[in-house]
Amino acid sequence: MPVATFFRFLNQLHPIKGSLENYLLGKISTVSFNKGKFLISPLDKEDHVFFLVRGAVRGFTKIGQKKITTWLTIENNLVGRIRQNDQHEMVEEYIEALEYCEVVKINSAFLKELYFQYFEINYIGRLLAQKLYMAAEERALIGRLPTAEAKYKRFLSVYPDLVNRVSLKYIAFFLGLSVETLSRIRSKITNDGNELIVR
Amino acid sequence: MPVATFFRFLNQLHPIKGSLENYLLGKISTVSFNKGKFLISPLDKEDHVFFLVRGAVRGFTKIGQKKITTWLTIENNLVGRIRQNDQHEMVEEYIEALEYCEVVKINSAFLKELYFQYFEINYIGRLLAQKLYMAAEERALIGRLPTAEAKYKRFLSVYPDLVNRVSLKYIAFFLGLSVETLSRIRSKITNDGNELIVR
Repeated sequence: MPVATFFRFLNQLHPIKGSLENYLLGKISTVSFNKGKFLISPLDKEDHVFFLVRGAVRGFTKIGQKKITTWLTIENNLVGRIRQNDQHEMVEEYIEALEYCEVVKINSAFLKELYFQYFEINYIGRLLAQKLYMAAEERALIGRLPTAEAKYKRFLSVYPDLVNRVSLKYIAFFLGLSVETLSRIRSKITNDGNELIVR
Repeated sequence: MPVATFFRFLNQLHPIKGSLENYLLGKISTVSFNKGKFLISPLDKEDHVFFLVRGAVRGFTKIGQKKITTWLTIENNLVGRIRQNDQHEMVEEYIEALEYCEVVKINSAFLKELYFQYFEINYIGRLLAQKLYMAAEERALIGRLPTAEAKYKRFLSVYPDLVNRVSLKYIAFFLGLSVETLSRIRSKITNDGNELIVR
């Protein structure tokens, strides 16, 4: 039950009282996306946040014709548009299903209202925003590591769940490496007996 | 008055009632740091969050002997340690004053208690964590732009306040470029008449 999984997730962060749970039940919905479909794209008329119950997604931004993969994630995480409006440049955000995905869908305008009404939603929202912040900082760090090998070794260490789940191509995009470079490093590390310390 | 600036900052996000303001006044302090000093380093016995009233800082992480600059910021921003504990690798966080800095200092353990007591602190904490998240995602994006020129042009567009404030060396570190490459791009862009669109 996707909705039950979602409430379990929330309750672990802060107990949700019955009246709020009932209110939320009337406002959220369960949706599925096939592989290759977009959970979020610039064509959306309304903005939503998704709790990923099942599946793997990647977030990418399009600057001009260039697609830049800035994050990858799997089930039990909240995903959504990061920028409200990009005032700086034409940056378009996409979230793409890399597998069949089941999500709980929450309207962002509704969520914004909730923040004015419920203490626990702010408490949970703060914890989740802090978690997302730490994850984004990790992405900023991994992209700045000095060598391709250091990047992939840190990837193996920080994202063990993604290694055998997401195709090599998207891992390469995420690390800012060519697929050839990543393939070469991957076989080298395997041959070296999986020695994972970043130097 | 640093403390007055801090309360103005908070009140813009959510009104702070008088009793909370008085409580906070007894718990926060004003500190200054000379250029080159660390607001945060692995030697700290206690963890703090700082509201930067005046000055510019850079955040860097040390992995082995390698320092990696992941962020730069100036006054009217909250700064602090991003990782609670790095379980993955020996990653050490530092925040360094790039100018003389005046800050309001808040103990992190005290802040954690506040979250259980005051609705408005969660409301403000959530907004700030979301803002920090967007900023970290921007740093993840800029580090993945395909060319040195695209990185510097986006830097000019997103961080206009930092361009003439932070020395070329730290901008180069932040963008993951060599100082020579950045110097070359900087003079090229100036000669081209400051044409700033990222292609």
